[in-house]
Amino acid sequence: MNKRDEALRRLEEFALKLLEQIENKQPPYMEIPSRTLSNTVWDPERKMLLLGPAKFRRELFDMKEARKFMQTVLMLKLLVQAIREGVYPTIRDLYYHGKHTIEFIDHLGRKQKENTWDEQTESNAVLQDIEVATGLLREEMGISADVKGKMVGPIIVRSRGYEIDCTRMGEGAFGLPPNPDDLEIVKIEATYVLCVEKDAIFQRLNREEFWKRENCILITAKGMPDRATRRMLRRLWEEYKLPVYILTDADPYGWYIYSVYKSGSIALSYESERLACPGAKFIGLTTSDIIEYRISDEYVIAATDRDIKRATELMKYPWFQSPHWQKELKLFLKLKKKVEIEALSTHGFKFLHDYIIDKIHHGKFID
Amino acid sequence: MNKRDEALRRLEEFALKLLEQIENKQPPYMEIPSRTLSNTVWDPERKMLLLGPAKFRRELFDMKEARKFMQTVLMLKLLVQAIREGVYPTIRDLYYHGKHTIEFIDHLGRKQKENTWDEQTESNAVLQDIEVATGLLREEMGISADVKGKMVGPIIVRSRGYEIDCTRMGEGAFGLPPNPDDLEIVKIEATYVLCVEKDAIFQRLNREEFWKRENCILITAKGMPDRATRRMLRRLWEEYKLPVYILTDADPYGWYIYSVYKSGSIALSYESERLACPGAKFIGLTTSDIIEYRISDEYVIAATDRDIKRATELMKYPWFQSPHWQKELKLFLKLKKKVEIEALSTHGFKFLHDYIIDKIHHGKFID
Repeated sequence: MNKRDEALRRLEEFALKLLEQIENKQPPYMEIPSRTLSNTVWDPERKMLLLGPAKFRRELFDMKEARKFMQTVLMLKLLVQAIREGVYPTIRDLYYHGKHTIEFIDHLGRKQKENTWDEQTESNAVLQDIEVATGLLREEMGISADVKGKMVGPIIVRSRGYEIDCTRMGEGAFGLPPNPDDLEIVKIEATYVLCVEKDAIFQRLNREEFWKRENCILITAKGMPDRATRRMLRRLWEEYKLPVYILTDADPYGWYIYSVYKSGSIALSYESERLACPGAKFIGLTTSDIIEYRISDEYVIAATDRDIKRATELMKYPWFQSPHWQKELKLFLKLKKKVEIEALSTHGFKFLHDYIIDKIHHGKFID
Repeated sequence: MNKRDEALRRLEEFALKLLEQIENKQPPYMEIPSRTLSNTVWDPERKMLLLGPAKFRRELFDMKEARKFMQTVLMLKLLVQAIREGVYPTIRDLYYHGKHTIEFIDHLGRKQKENTWDEQTESNAVLQDIEVATGLLREEMGISADVKGKMVGPIIVRSRGYEIDCTRMGEGAFGLPPNPDDLEIVKIEATYVLCVEKDAIFQRLNREEFWKRENCILITAKGMPDRATRRMLRRLWEEYKLPVYILTDADPYGWYIYSVYKSGSIALSYESERLACPGAKFIGLTTSDIIEYRISDEYVIAATDRDIKRATELMKYPWFQSPHWQKELKLFLKLKKKVEIEALSTHGFKFLHDYIIDKIHHGKFID
């Protein structure tokens, strides 16, 4: 049974429970884990934000939940339909295909109209409910999404029967599929994974064959990571125990990107269990690097109010509580200076390589 | 001689002219085509905005141009250095590596300081000057940049000796290199190229094997196209005479994306000669499609003031002067409605395929 069929089976199982209730003349309800902040728990051992044990009941015969009940069943139907039809809709396709007006006669005999949903936020919310209720990610259901991730280096994967050797992409790269779980990893010879924030830096390092020199897998998601890239990174760390190093600009936005890779986002903690990569280590740039690597003031950028605000927020996150991070964030708030990766080029075009190697091989990273 | 060495030769040639002038005790100058709006000419035959014949002289002994003269020579040095060192810097690397303070004694014996450049706009401007003066694109010099383009379908390319068969990417894709001119096209069996605005639609069509069914090359740049994707599309159209079809949302932003693929941007007309794809045809969505494909009002989005402003601008562009486009833009300004590609899913998840095939095979496109 392939993975999408397995997802189909679990979606049908979820729906069958409702059918059983109806056949047994019980008021239909579904049990859904709460995606509320109060049910979001930091697990210090696994170093992840996870959903807690709280669940709620969505009942058809509850005026406050009836519309959402209808929406959840509609979304279930759409998901099952897509798998059966062999198509790979986006969440926006689901929204449009499911959007229509229901006409019905109410208990007083009046003709009524009700939209299935008006906004995509509504259809997205019930999709998330189904994800947490079934323990399936949307990717496993075959939902398509934007993919930003690219990868090169000593790894061979198989997709739809084709073997893809990521050492043989030349100056191009392998663009990740929407669901990296569908990739069979045939062979890995890399000793670590280097994940860079900036696409242009990825291009440089690929063309300069950094991954060959270092025998590493090079990966990027061009800024804020998409789910596919996060899932791929997680798999490399979890299944192959590869060390994962993240390289970003020295600014709160870069550090936030690191934290999304490492621990996920607070709003979507239910994804973390599958998408977060708590073993990821940060190799810079940090504010200390400005001093450590003698980046003079003319290459430094003044922090904006937004940077300051974001850094203050980061200081409160559970995964920024280590003394090392607290020291860095305080230093940033004191100096109010940020630096781009490219500023390393003030020491010559090749200094970027030296920097990364120094950081990784001398253990100069933050956990 | 590989292509980068050829670029090196032309950069050195440009620099040698200056050296000759100095050795001949002439005041050094360089001749640079004007990148001004008044020197931007619409060529109705080639259907492109091109740079006109106007050139200007940048002279060292001209107080207004002396600093820019210095910057241009500095940029020349950096470009030559990068090729000789075998590195592939980004424009931001060039900015940082070139940024420093020159100290000198002026004609009155006073110590003076002058920054090579303060902002990246300055270093970018002289890079553009060198591009137009030498007729080389930055890509040919090996400058790295963000790459958004992905490609799948019946095309085999060679990069750094590796053959990459874009029918064998499974659910992934081939991520284009920064300079598609470095790709040797080994074999093409496609009958046309389908370029889609949205990455998620690209993912869907790839997974649903639309390109196999239609024997076409599928390409995306995820929104506003980057230079690499534009260059790749241009090559497929120019060198292989493949019809190119563009699919975007029905809104002025989508149409603008189409126009960038087709004709480039007014501000950077000098690139058009190499990056524009004047043969590209637009297969929708158009405002008429709302009526033609019976997309009911509940799936339609109200146009914003910005949409209206942009549509009014588009109406003035030379490449939107055809009666067909003028009719469409007027209809948009009248109805003030826009529609997303995904709205086609109201007719079923598979309707997207039917739509594209109908548009292409029944010639329902705009030139």
